[in-house]
Amino acid sequence: MKNLAANSLGQNFVITSFGESHGKVIGIIVDGTPAGLELDIDFIQSELNMRRPGQSKVTTSRKEKDQVEVLSGIFKGKTTGAPICLIIRNEDINSSKYEKFKDLLRPSQVDYSALKRYGGFADYRGSGRFSGRNTAGFVMAGAIAKQLLKKYKIEIFAYTKSIGTIYDDKNYDFEDLVLLLKRREESTVRTLNKDNEAEMINLIQNVKGSKDSIGGTIKCIVKNVPAGIGNPIFNSLESSLSHAIFSIPAIKGIEFGAGFKAAEMKGSEHNDPWILKGDQIQTSKNDCGGIIGGISIGMPIEFTLAIKPTATIGKIQDTVNVKAREETTVEMEGRHDPCIVPRAVVVVEAMTAIVLVDHLITQGYIKPVLNT
Amino acid sequence: MKNLAANSLGQNFVITSFGESHGKVIGIIVDGTPAGLELDIDFIQSELNMRRPGQSKVTTSRKEKDQVEVLSGIFKGKTTGAPICLIIRNEDINSSKYEKFKDLLRPSQVDYSALKRYGGFADYRGSGRFSGRNTAGFVMAGAIAKQLLKKYKIEIFAYTKSIGTIYDDKNYDFEDLVLLLKRREESTVRTLNKDNEAEMINLIQNVKGSKDSIGGTIKCIVKNVPAGIGNPIFNSLESSLSHAIFSIPAIKGIEFGAGFKAAEMKGSEHNDPWILKGDQIQTSKNDCGGIIGGISIGMPIEFTLAIKPTATIGKIQDTVNVKAREETTVEMEGRHDPCIVPRAVVVVEAMTAIVLVDHLITQGYIKPVLNT
Amino acid sequence: MKNLAANSLGQNFVITSFGESHGKVIGIIVDGTPAGLELDIDFIQSELNMRRPGQSKVTTSRKEKDQVEVLSGIFKGKTTGAPICLIIRNEDINSSKYEKFKDLLRPSQVDYSALKRYGGFADYRGSGRFSGRNTAGFVMAGAIAKQLLKKYKIEIFAYTKSIGTIYDDKNYDFEDLVLLLKRREESTVRTLNKDNEAEMINLIQNVKGSKDSIGGTIKCIVKNVPAGIGNPIFNSLESSLSHAIFSIPAIKGIEFGAGFKAAEMKGSEHNDPWILKGDQIQTSKNDCGGIIGGISIGMPIEFTLAIKPTATIGKIQDTVNVKAREETTVEMEGRHDPCIVPRAVVVVEAMTAIVLVDHLITQGYIKPVLNT
Amino acid sequence: MKNLAANSLGQNFVITSFGESHGKVIGIIVDGTPAGLELDIDFIQSELNMRRPGQSKVTTSRKEKDQVEVLSGIFKGKTTGAPICLIIRNEDINSSKYEKFKDLLRPSQVDYSALKRYGGFADYRGSGRFSGRNTAGFVMAGAIAKQLLKKYKIEIFAYTKSIGTIYDDKNYDFEDLVLLLKRREESTVRTLNKDNEAEMINLIQNVKGSKDSIGGTIKCIVKNVPAGIGNPIFNSLESSLSHAIFSIPAIKGIEFGAGFKAAEMKGSEHNDPWILKGDQIQTSKNDCGGIIGGISIGMPIEFTLAIKPTATIGKIQDTVNVKAREETTVEMEGRHDPCIVPRAVVVVEAMTAIVLVDHLITQGYIKPVLNT
Repeated sequence: MKNLAANSLGQNFVITSFGESHGKVIGIIVDGTPAGLELDIDFIQSELNMRRPGQSKVTTSRKEKDQVEVLSGIFKGKTTGAPICLIIRNEDINSSKYEKFKDLLRPSQVDYSALKRYGGFADYRGSGRFSGRNTAGFVMAGAIAKQLLKKYKIEIFAYTKSIGTIYDDKNYDFEDLVLLLKRREESTVRTLNKDNEAEMINLIQNVKGSKDSIGGTIKCIVKNVPAGIGNPIFNSLESSLSHAIFSIPAIKGIEFGAGFKAAEMKGSEHNDPWILKGDQIQTSKNDCGGIIGGISIGMPIEFTLAIKPTATIGKIQDTVNVKAREETTVEMEGRHDPCIVPRAVVVVEAMTAIVLVDHLITQGYIKPVLNT
Repeated sequence: MKNLAANSLGQNFVITSFGESHGKVIGIIVDGTPAGLELDIDFIQSELNMRRPGQSKVTTSRKEKDQVEVLSGIFKGKTTGAPICLIIRNEDINSSKYEKFKDLLRPSQVDYSALKRYGGFADYRGSGRFSGRNTAGFVMAGAIAKQLLKKYKIEIFAYTKSIGTIYDDKNYDFEDLVLLLKRREESTVRTLNKDNEAEMINLIQNVKGSKDSIGGTIKCIVKNVPAGIGNPIFNSLESSLSHAIFSIPAIKGIEFGAGFKAAEMKGSEHNDPWILKGDQIQTSKNDCGGIIGGISIGMPIEFTLAIKPTATIGKIQDTVNVKAREETTVEMEGRHDPCIVPRAVVVVEAMTAIVLVDHLITQGYIKPVLNT
Repeated sequence: MKNLAANSLGQNFVITSFGESHGKVIGIIVDGTPAGLELDIDFIQSELNMRRPGQSKVTTSRKEKDQVEVLSGIFKGKTTGAPICLIIRNEDINSSKYEKFKDLLRPSQVDYSALKRYGGFADYRGSGRFSGRNTAGFVMAGAIAKQLLKKYKIEIFAYTKSIGTIYDDKNYDFEDLVLLLKRREESTVRTLNKDNEAEMINLIQNVKGSKDSIGGTIKCIVKNVPAGIGNPIFNSLESSLSHAIFSIPAIKGIEFGAGFKAAEMKGSEHNDPWILKGDQIQTSKNDCGGIIGGISIGMPIEFTLAIKPTATIGKIQDTVNVKAREETTVEMEGRHDPCIVPRAVVVVEAMTAIVLVDHLITQGYIKPVLNT
Repeated sequence: MKNLAANSLGQNFVITSFGESHGKVIGIIVDGTPAGLELDIDFIQSELNMRRPGQSKVTTSRKEKDQVEVLSGIFKGKTTGAPICLIIRNEDINSSKYEKFKDLLRPSQVDYSALKRYGGFADYRGSGRFSGRNTAGFVMAGAIAKQLLKKYKIEIFAYTKSIGTIYDDKNYDFEDLVLLLKRREESTVRTLNKDNEAEMINLIQNVKGSKDSIGGTIKCIVKNVPAGIGNPIFNSLESSLSHAIFSIPAIKGIEFGAGFKAAEMKGSEHNDPWILKGDQIQTSKNDCGGIIGGISIGMPIEFTLAIKPTATIGKIQDTVNVKAREETTVEMEGRHDPCIVPRAVVVVEAMTAIVLVDHLITQGYIKPVLNT
């Protein structure tokens, strides 16, 4: 896992992100894709659609077509081995309001970070380079990674595990992913649990009504990763996954397997006994989250993420005018997601796919040229 | 944050780890240390001593001197700008028992991971390259990083926040670190809370008595990191810290600031209002953990880690004989830490220091040659 | 100097190349540019114009506007610290002829390399990813690097030293670069020597007339690099410069200072004596090319490059039909540069600028935020 | 090809160099070696012996045993997949004389470079980190790389092509490497040409007698590299080889295939026609040096290096006292190589092997676990 000047990620499958929320484009370069992969552009688009704003009453009303354009790396419908550049254009832009707030530090937003990091030169319109809109690039790259993983029967599935304090604690049978995918698609909050879906939607609409926002958690499962992927010291699976996942704005925690519950357990409870299932070596439970010693053991990889409430809220908040150097208040108007969790689900899948492809290429499981 | 062939970490301040639990040495190379730093070898040793086995009744009885040796990079007591190679030698080695367990997959241990990753060629004695003993190298590198940070008044402090379900939920005044350091040093479990220290120790001794083990959490605070350190997309502070921290065996979760609690909060609760404290821009609380948009805001950086219970326990456990391909049981004897949390505290500090120095060098805060 | 999946270059100032000769665009991402640089787009364009095809009778007649477009990273005319994406569009494309030659291995061209590397999936139109046209991206990135270097008074100057066996062995006074730049601009072959310019042009037109091509050499000088830039072991100045320079197609040799002549010299002849020039430490001559031990000494950095003759020639050549697996001949028609040397001059300058900026950022000479 | 903090090289097969000429050790870490390679330590030693000082009358009289010690990464005689740390100890050290010369800038030596790079903190004894002695680490790493390449029938062979103006222009049949290796081993100057060997030796002894030194060239050939290795843009074979080769002190030029002669040729002369040799696609000559478009074509890879004369000579030379800030002279005594070319031959082979293994691992030809 490498980050050069901080906009590239990966060792042998490398994505390079560029673009700003209110600039011309959001883009991504995917370098290291094997040659010979027939690329399904419609699938990339459908992944983008899952992240697109304006999908439902629980998301922002910003309208963007977010239509993928391929600038390089594809020839006769297949990957060539050259870097693939994908962009979407920014369209529904009204940047005027940002001038007004230019000197106000919006609470828990990136204004002060950007100021101290880039000395006042950062593009502040729509949070510019810090905007969650940049994750559209991750989704496009992830859609390529997913298509590669599919050839190896590796499947990634994430869903909303909680909104606020409303938790979905059901255990699902991930053997039947088709059913779960359908269920998730039907749900505007990307939950699998019909029992508390209405409650989750209500909560989001309530906080929206009161000009507030709410956090939540996402669970992600990866099936069919072969045993032996990862590393014992640096670039462990937990290291590379967490590194990539924390690139998604608003994520503030990650736990693998039993996670923070493991910290309360005894070894005799937490240890996952080895069993034989037919000829297959497995464990009878999966508190390790499918990873031991930084390396996959062939069980599903499982982790859960904490997503903070959207920082942009309509309520009046205390703040500082950085130019006047005085305390004041700020009241933001306009469109924003009252809860980012539903739209983040596909982004989590994307980053997970990207990391796994990198590991699989690095360890020689995925070859530079695909057989056809 | 880069990992080449997975034993190097860092972009401009790079550590390279080598060695095995029962090999000749555990070592680390620290590359990118500015020239002109007067290196305090005694401090490196004192840090190693905090991690050393056999310190007290709550740790393993393995006896190692763990004495640091400098092989390169120091001239006339100062760093030269050349890579610094530090080693400790392995001494108290009895590898015979590992032959016996060679074909048994010890539950939640690295045997199967190593087998699938390295095809049966890995050094299995004492878990070899997967051993927690490799973190002695991290501690030595961290001790160099800490000495650098000290010149910039940046201080890192970690402590035991919980053992099992015994939590220390007190809030401490980290302004007076000297007092807290003294308190922590007096505590064999590295807690700050005299009220439940005895309870924690009892719990560890109880699980030890019943041939079991127990997990816990560690909290880490970093003071005086200047605002503006980190990156918005990849190599955010959360990304690089989590990447490095997950290199420590047994860590299964990390959360920054309010972390998983943030996922239950509303924006109006979670947002940290900006205030003026004299001429200083600060926030009135720190639920963001000192990081917004992947970048430090000048408030303390705060995160908490979940550590699973030690996998090596004396109880009889179900497992598989990988050679005979049959289910069986395993009963491990010998010395092991009933709870790794106390010894991990200094390792967490070390990885944190290493990551921060890398960021500070990359952003030009720390120069290639120190003024003297 | 890093190359991930082989389309990124640099450690802290990183360029990522994408695009194909007959695809939609040729592009480059420049990551790590300090914030606050007022970017002169006209200068980028003027640099592109120096490389553009169809400039004169000694270059290809392919017509391309090669007009730079900025997709990201600039706000209010200045760099923001975010990655800068620059593209030019491909326009004068007639790809039909490439179908005809698809199975013929054109001598000394990339057909066989591409076939074995990418298994038949590479875009073969106009040599696709291997095309010299990709160097337009280098030139755009180089134009940014040059603008940065200008702020530090560092100047890069390259010129045609020879075409075929016609050498310009004059020594120039690089103190007066303005004059030399003017002289070079007036010369279609980018020579400084009026005495043999006509001879060079004649030679190129002669080989063009006989459906042939010719090689040549380029000399590059860098003034005002401070002493102390570079590294003793890896990433020496020679290492990083040669790595970048060999990314330019057709370059087959590089020598620093006296270069291959040094191999025939005695130490007493080759050694450059140290002298004082006022208070400045200098050498009385510069056979080392301004680099000792991989590090700049404050003297001009000097190196010379060998450029092979263009592989595409109109003469009938022996070859193999790779599909039919039989020997045959190939006769290529159409536009090509009879000598690539004049157009390569600005590309050499670009790669040199990019490498130096990376070193200067890495060593803290150039800061993440520029003062304004 | 990556260089982090400048002492590591490689993408997936990474060497990290440490140590100083008069420090405790010279060392190297080799990370990314596949597991399961039976390591021949005697071979590593025999390679070291080829570079060792004090071998003959044409080399320095410094006496070092240069005995390889393995600190990590080997278990039961085989590589484990963990990083391999190899060291030699420094023994024949008399550092006293360096104190005397501390403030004198020895002409064409690294004193001024080190001073400006490391601010006076560098270890100056025996040129410290800049010493050619560090290449012993390269040789150890190269000996591992060669053993890997042997399994794939890839053979590297370098020899002295010239000393001063005495050139060996014979063409050798590299099919019969055993014979050539024997011939080279018999020659103290590592030439293959019995006709001018005596002349070469005489020249070296003459310059030694007159307290002077002499340069030379080395040619390197690699057989049996499969077609398709390398990259079109960055990390071309020429890029990565030149990057690594210029890490060897004293090298000032490199040319591939026809090299600088290509710059004088017409395309019709230089182009290598494709032919069929049985079923094999080859070229009828090899002016491209086995590399087209940055990628191997299956022909031998060929390149030639220029090595400057040793900077350390006994003659009185003009210089500057950097402390007193005045011009003066310097007269160096003691042991030094009058010509470094013979000892550099094995170092060139080592760096070449290291680079090729990195490419072969990156492209999936060499797997993480070797079959046994």
